[in-house]
Amino acid sequence: MPDIESVVAEIAESLSRRTDRGKVATYIPELARVPIDQFGIAVFMADGKMFVAGDAETPFSIQSVSKAFTLTLALGKVGDRLWSRVGREPSGDPFNSIVQLEYEKGKPRNPFINAGAIAVTDTLLAGHAPKEALGEILDFVRFIADDDTISIDEHVARSEKQTGFLNTALANYMRAFKVLEHPVDHVLGVYFHHCSIAMTCRQLAMAGRYLAFSGRLPGQNVSVVSSERARRISALMLTCGHYDGSGDFAFRVGLPAKSGVGGAILAVAPGKASIAVWSPGLDQNGNSVLGSLALEQLAKAMRWSVFGD
Amino acid sequence: MPDIESVVAEIAESLSRRTDRGKVATYIPELARVPIDQFGIAVFMADGKMFVAGDAETPFSIQSVSKAFTLTLALGKVGDRLWSRVGREPSGDPFNSIVQLEYEKGKPRNPFINAGAIAVTDTLLAGHAPKEALGEILDFVRFIADDDTISIDEHVARSEKQTGFLNTALANYMRAFKVLEHPVDHVLGVYFHHCSIAMTCRQLAMAGRYLAFSGRLPGQNVSVVSSERARRISALMLTCGHYDGSGDFAFRVGLPAKSGVGGAILAVAPGKASIAVWSPGLDQNGNSVLGSLALEQLAKAMRWSVFGD
Amino acid sequence: MPDIESVVAEIAESLSRRTDRGKVATYIPELARVPIDQFGIAVFMADGKMFVAGDAETPFSIQSVSKAFTLTLALGKVGDRLWSRVGREPSGDPFNSIVQLEYEKGKPRNPFINAGAIAVTDTLLAGHAPKEALGEILDFVRFIADDDTISIDEHVARSEKQTGFLNTALANYMRAFKVLEHPVDHVLGVYFHHCSIAMTCRQLAMAGRYLAFSGRLPGQNVSVVSSERARRISALMLTCGHYDGSGDFAFRVGLPAKSGVGGAILAVAPGKASIAVWSPGLDQNGNSVLGSLALEQLAKAMRWSVFGD
Amino acid sequence: MPDIESVVAEIAESLSRRTDRGKVATYIPELARVPIDQFGIAVFMADGKMFVAGDAETPFSIQSVSKAFTLTLALGKVGDRLWSRVGREPSGDPFNSIVQLEYEKGKPRNPFINAGAIAVTDTLLAGHAPKEALGEILDFVRFIADDDTISIDEHVARSEKQTGFLNTALANYMRAFKVLEHPVDHVLGVYFHHCSIAMTCRQLAMAGRYLAFSGRLPGQNVSVVSSERARRISALMLTCGHYDGSGDFAFRVGLPAKSGVGGAILAVAPGKASIAVWSPGLDQNGNSVLGSLALEQLAKAMRWSVFGD
Repeated sequence: MPDIESVVAEIAESLSRRTDRGKVATYIPELARVPIDQFGIAVFMADGKMFVAGDAETPFSIQSVSKAFTLTLALGKVGDRLWSRVGREPSGDPFNSIVQLEYEKGKPRNPFINAGAIAVTDTLLAGHAPKEALGEILDFVRFIADDDTISIDEHVARSEKQTGFLNTALANYMRAFKVLEHPVDHVLGVYFHHCSIAMTCRQLAMAGRYLAFSGRLPGQNVSVVSSERARRISALMLTCGHYDGSGDFAFRVGLPAKSGVGGAILAVAPGKASIAVWSPGLDQNGNSVLGSLALEQLAKAMRWSVFGD
Repeated sequence: MPDIESVVAEIAESLSRRTDRGKVATYIPELARVPIDQFGIAVFMADGKMFVAGDAETPFSIQSVSKAFTLTLALGKVGDRLWSRVGREPSGDPFNSIVQLEYEKGKPRNPFINAGAIAVTDTLLAGHAPKEALGEILDFVRFIADDDTISIDEHVARSEKQTGFLNTALANYMRAFKVLEHPVDHVLGVYFHHCSIAMTCRQLAMAGRYLAFSGRLPGQNVSVVSSERARRISALMLTCGHYDGSGDFAFRVGLPAKSGVGGAILAVAPGKASIAVWSPGLDQNGNSVLGSLALEQLAKAMRWSVFGD
Repeated sequence: MPDIESVVAEIAESLSRRTDRGKVATYIPELARVPIDQFGIAVFMADGKMFVAGDAETPFSIQSVSKAFTLTLALGKVGDRLWSRVGREPSGDPFNSIVQLEYEKGKPRNPFINAGAIAVTDTLLAGHAPKEALGEILDFVRFIADDDTISIDEHVARSEKQTGFLNTALANYMRAFKVLEHPVDHVLGVYFHHCSIAMTCRQLAMAGRYLAFSGRLPGQNVSVVSSERARRISALMLTCGHYDGSGDFAFRVGLPAKSGVGGAILAVAPGKASIAVWSPGLDQNGNSVLGSLALEQLAKAMRWSVFGD
Repeated sequence: MPDIESVVAEIAESLSRRTDRGKVATYIPELARVPIDQFGIAVFMADGKMFVAGDAETPFSIQSVSKAFTLTLALGKVGDRLWSRVGREPSGDPFNSIVQLEYEKGKPRNPFINAGAIAVTDTLLAGHAPKEALGEILDFVRFIADDDTISIDEHVARSEKQTGFLNTALANYMRAFKVLEHPVDHVLGVYFHHCSIAMTCRQLAMAGRYLAFSGRLPGQNVSVVSSERARRISALMLTCGHYDGSGDFAFRVGLPAKSGVGGAILAVAPGKASIAVWSPGLDQNGNSVLGSLALEQLAKAMRWSVFGD
């Protein structure tokens, strides 16, 4: 087994020379301004050690990575009743497709495409004002990352809201089918804000620990979710975590992971590590080019694929 | 860790009392005649021991489970060039959908939907007459199962051919886009025949060993494929192996697996076991109802999910 | 040639005995309250005479019939530039489908499905506040109907707004692709209000005169649009005027016509008559059941099909 | 009213200078060889006179124009029972789309897209061997054109068969849903052959007389179909006769017409004229570029639009 510290350093080093980095997301103006020449990686190991390289302390917008956390909260709140409103199947469509919603009467295919995550957010509003629901989400992220400094980037949230016509279309469409129960602007307000949580690679790797380690925070006597729930969320990350590139990511990397258009990917090697990578250049499916490559190299070097060594 | 022998026996015992068994596939007349009240299971362990229960010695039509084997052969023959003709993404559609083919110009989404498997079969015809290609497939299955008695059920093959209008439509559609290179009736002839291979649970669990054990046959000094290829085929089984029920199967069971409309499922617990289950009643996605349940109970009892214990 | 007066009377009489009247639109609460046992007809002839029967003086919500009038206004305002934003093809989809918008990048197929009519309404907002644009529409309808008492039913407009999630989805979707240029709530405000114009059959038959008589108001020396434009709007009514029942209506009736979910249909027999029918029960495509039947009987009796006698 | 003779001559003259002529159909090799610089027109008037210009005596492959004739025959054979197998709505899709078939369980949208015409051809096989059915079609075309020299171009028929994978896909797809009742190769054999009937503009204008003149052959005491049926076939030509360009053709030209990928268009001005135009260059919807233009100019000059003068 190779040494994780040197593997992480080599990955950061080799990727720093890559010129083909994809394109920064342009449809959210605030994200379009992020310099493309950045890459960070952080790996939290079962023994409690953290290994980082590159821009691992630079904050970025976690975007859709937040969907893993809101799904966790929603399952805690409503349990398996969630699945009457959201499916568990890969979509075969882009992240913002509305076609599937029409064919399936407003029920989104899974909680990791935009429509599904908006429906998940709606459940978090039950009995809460939007501000309270958002507070609950932020508190949860701070708790699992063990870091109270994590906050929301209001510029990004505002930028998303002003240009979020497709998400507004998705939300209204679901509202027409009563998949959403709360006012569309409340739901989207919370959704745009939790997508705008800013974190560093180090913070994100901390936040992913409960998914990697059977629902628990290693070294602490704390259970965040049951081990079964951690496995199930991981399964959804593997089959649906990279939009219409999920199959390819599973094929190449072999780890459950959730990507965001800010360029972050949170991946877990069950029982072994929680990993966060970040680089803002995206491929045509909206997934970080260097982030995917880094995870492919890491999984290969460490023999961490869930599909065997 | 519970005792595998008693777990297998208990599963067979408890499932024998289930009345909700779905429906036997009706669109292939020969399959429609198979009595629904059957269930078999066979588990091949890393130490070389085999545990069986129920109708584990009754032969059945493996149908789409054969797609895992033809994919293995095709990758051996043309390597990654295969992916220029077939994608690696879940489809979000039924197994016999043609809609996706039109939207993606004749390129099937993955090798485990019908269109994709037909394209894979086409590659196996390069330089071969249909009979030779079919012989090669059968030889391979006999080799990995270590059993020369495995054969093709000609009644089923003929039945498929006579009613295979949807598959003929898919094949002609791909031929129009030059995704198929050989005559449609040659390709479908081979396809219908390899779907009609008859095996027992015991034989199928033997055949799956190389996928479960890093490409090797345990106890023998034989490598069928590289460990990387075994992992990658397993990844495709997890994301695409149950048609439009793949996400749900990954969520509930957490093991790479390939199902067939004959009621069989081949599953692998990487490094631990190769598992075959069979029961002819299917759910609305075309997957065995009792087979899925058996694997869910087995994975849970043995803590075999790839997503952690 | 039969006598129009007795034909109209006989149609009203024979339809009064029909029990199969479809269903009143339920998705707009105010429309759901309209009693189903009503039917009205009004026929304005080239010689200036009007023949009416049944509930021809009862006001109803014209709903999508207004799309013919807003299209006329928009063509007057921007001419053929309109067609860069809206297509001219039948949709092959329900009136509120969003699927087509995704496949064609936000450009609606024709001005008579909801998305297309919303885009048309957007053009009427250029240089106008919503209230002014709405005033212009209402003035135009009063002018072509020669009746200043025509007004908007504010209850219906409010009812539409409160339940118009699908239309809000459509509008936001088009806004994302810049097919709409004005704020979504402005556009929808005007759209919901012009759909809520209340008219009687008599008023509606008056309003349709310019379409039936080469763009002119017969008996007055007034040209509303050029004869070419009147023909072209009529062509769109024939191919797209009944949503996904347009082909069937052309087949059975053979007249250009525009229907609305309030149960009204405005039809024109070029050079011969402007016809309004109304009955609130709808078929599964959203078209008035008795209204369609009445027009079929009328066109047959009077040999008015545009496809020959 | 302008003089038809000079109008026809001027159209041929002005179009001879056009350089933007679209592209000759390439997917049928025999059609791809036809020189693009040809244009013919023939107009048969109510008084029995025929006016021609350009290459009006050059034979071409009528292709989908034959669908109007086979529809006529099928309605004569099975009457309105035909509509249980084929719809009457515009498709909103390309002529060879298979997507709609999947969404509507194998029932094609109308008799003028390929799938629909194949289903129509299937009904003509009832009680007939393929050769007999084809003979019946050819006899009918010769009868309505009053010309026994009309024949089938066997080179084109063979060329279609060898490259007709999409049509074979459509036919097999419908066979799976039992929309076709006869063997796929029989149905396609007849279909490919009637598409390969070769005619001149003069012959085609003769053949269209019954559609233009209330089902009768003017000057002869012969009724081909009832006037109602002639109107209804004309209605389908208007709403569906130009594939996904039908709405635009109705908008610009305003006449019922059926186009074919050989470059022919048969149009009717009810009660006034039967018109055939031909030029092999096609637009992106598969309709003749010069043919459409010629009809637009003709209808405008003669004030023949069915939507008024």
